[in-house]
Amino acid sequence: MDKSKHKQLPEIVACKEVARSRLVAVEQVDLKFSNGAERCFEKIKGSGQGAVMVVPLLDADTLLLIREYCAGTHNYQLGFPKGLVDPGEQPQQAANRELQEEVGFGAHGWTHLHQVCMAPAFFNAKMDIFIAKDLFASVLEGDEPEPLEVVQWPLSDYKSLLAQTDFTEARSIAALLLLKDFLEVPDDK
Amino acid sequence: MDKSKHKQLPEIVACKEVARSRLVAVEQVDLKFSNGAERCFEKIKGSGQGAVMVVPLLDADTLLLIREYCAGTHNYQLGFPKGLVDPGEQPQQAANRELQEEVGFGAHGWTHLHQVCMAPAFFNAKMDIFIAKDLFASVLEGDEPEPLEVVQWPLSDYKSLLAQTDFTEARSIAALLLLKDFLEVPDDK
Repeated sequence: MDKSKHKQLPEIVACKEVARSRLVAVEQVDLKFSNGAERCFEKIKGSGQGAVMVVPLLDADTLLLIREYCAGTHNYQLGFPKGLVDPGEQPQQAANRELQEEVGFGAHGWTHLHQVCMAPAFFNAKMDIFIAKDLFASVLEGDEPEPLEVVQWPLSDYKSLLAQTDFTEARSIAALLLLKDFLEVPDDK
Repeated sequence: MDKSKHKQLPEIVACKEVARSRLVAVEQVDLKFSNGAERCFEKIKGSGQGAVMVVPLLDADTLLLIREYCAGTHNYQLGFPKGLVDPGEQPQQAANRELQEEVGFGAHGWTHLHQVCMAPAFFNAKMDIFIAKDLFASVLEGDEPEPLEVVQWPLSDYKSLLAQTDFTEARSIAALLLLKDFLEVPDDK
């Protein structure tokens, strides 16, 4: 086992934009690996500011989630509030803004739980996950097309949350289980 | 709390392709929500066949991971073997193929651990996560540009894996903690 090996990165021989929409730019990257192999990959560029997710604890055993329309799957999905970091914002500021926009609470108590990425073969999309405690009612106007449904869930009943067919987003699942691990919640057998 | 609410989906007023590359197509979707609000979203279409991830257990306490170049982040990332389901394949067949291509093992014992999705606001990308046990050496030729580094990690030392700066992919983190939860591995304090 080698946990610290620094591998030689492939050389980027060429990089060009091959597609662009309002939100997305696709780049084609020509690579030469250290063994001489050559490959052409595509990567997707986003906002580049990073994103945040908030795990709000209304009390020690009550999670707050939202149910939101998702265009990619054309259905409503249950998950933790999240959003992009705006220019000039620190991640925790963005987290507190998203919490007020999507859930109608601000928080006094913030803990950085973890940083995750998503499909790094294609994206450079970092997301900072925060635990929010000591909540207080506070609403900020967001850009949501409709009010989001806020759902309370007992943390001790996390297994039933994992079993919900609309709670499947990998980052929300990771956040839930990282929280459980962080708080050392016993298994719900 | 309403766990089963069936919300009225927005109406898709129009949908058109606005960008395309070799691998990716971006669609613009014009939506009208049930409250009358109108929005224009973009979604990204992939292969549509779905994807698989494998959590291979060499023995009861030994995970197998791979360290692979990721073009999106231009670095090497540690994670579980994964890949797209090929046309005509069942997800478990794809999982057994990817395990042989990326790690050099096949498996006799398969358990479906969970299904996750990724950023459903933008993608319709389902991934089935499997546990693979009863491994046997078997190599299939894949399309990797270089041999992948295979890394063994003790499951009982999962907290040190979570602390690795190159183990950050949300689906690998979810898979690790879902496995721990499934096997009821005690917290490593």
